[in-house]
Amino acid sequence: MAPPLSVSFVGGERGTWEIERLVAVRGQALDDVPRLTVLDGPQAAGAGAVWVLRGVTSNERYVERPERDALVARQPTLRRPGATQAALIPISKSPAWWDLTQEERRAIIETRSRHIATGLAYLPAVARRLHHGRDLQQEFDFLTWFEFAPADAGPFEELVGRLRETEEWSYVDREIDIRLQYAG
Amino acid sequence: MAPPLSVSFVGGERGTWEIERLVAVRGQALDDVPRLTVLDGPQAAGAGAVWVLRGVTSNERYVERPERDALVARQPTLRRPGATQAALIPISKSPAWWDLTQEERRAIIETRSRHIATGLAYLPAVARRLHHGRDLQQEFDFLTWFEFAPADAGPFEELVGRLRETEEWSYVDREIDIRLQYAG
Repeated sequence: MAPPLSVSFVGGERGTWEIERLVAVRGQALDDVPRLTVLDGPQAAGAGAVWVLRGVTSNERYVERPERDALVARQPTLRRPGATQAALIPISKSPAWWDLTQEERRAIIETRSRHIATGLAYLPAVARRLHHGRDLQQEFDFLTWFEFAPADAGPFEELVGRLRETEEWSYVDREIDIRLQYAG
Repeated sequence: MAPPLSVSFVGGERGTWEIERLVAVRGQALDDVPRLTVLDGPQAAGAGAVWVLRGVTSNERYVERPERDALVARQPTLRRPGATQAALIPISKSPAWWDLTQEERRAIIETRSRHIATGLAYLPAVARRLHHGRDLQQEFDFLTWFEFAPADAGPFEELVGRLRETEEWSYVDREIDIRLQYAG
């Protein structure tokens, strides 16, 4: 496991990713902007930034050994050639979620919602990196970044749809869906 | 569960807690200082600060429902009248620890090391608050703060000794032990 990496997603006038669509799925919206920059590490946002969403990659909270082994065997790295489509899905979960204990959260996430198994079914097509914001007291509890080829846009849509139908998602009280295209 | 609270432990010339002893148990030492201030929330350290250790209270990572219920029933609040002794124990765990999966860490912490049950045995005498520093990319992964009455100093010493003998503690690669007395 790599040590925690602080990542900033900067929305504004400039950036290597063109924002094709930005929708508030649930809760308060986020200002629409034309471009996004992903800054790995503690870099400052440049001029023209309208919003900055911060998170940190961290140790896994729910994955067990057989799941980890399956993920490691299949998950691709970010920035693959050809993976020119991306999605950033910031979410926050409700106080009721955070009041659950560890085994109650695991039961909802995997035993009943199959979140890990579902994600696994879309590997290696959809690369994914999760960033935690709650302990950093950021606007969103989680920022998940996905990358895939244009040919895998359909399966990605299916993945997002399946997750939104789960019991786990009933604890999501804010969700933004941002779709992007690599613009170099 | 309260939302995450950012806390700074400021060592220096001034502070409401007098440092009686500061020992590096394992790994790199920390500069000896006479006083400590505990700042709840995002306050800046004042003049005279020699070091600042930061962490955030967070959701529990390992506690299960029956353990949570037992803890809630017995754990006292901080700043009790008479609880004039305190300890701050900053630790970091090894890369091998962070490479374990959730159920492997839980098995070591509780099934084999009885960390939660041991802490419970010293309630309500020893009040405790855990702060996470790793995702904040701080010097220590964890900062645990304890408060107790002078009459409970013996049991507290026993608690610390029992934890240090566990399998869990074999993953601790840095530990500082700071003992303090309330100085008003």
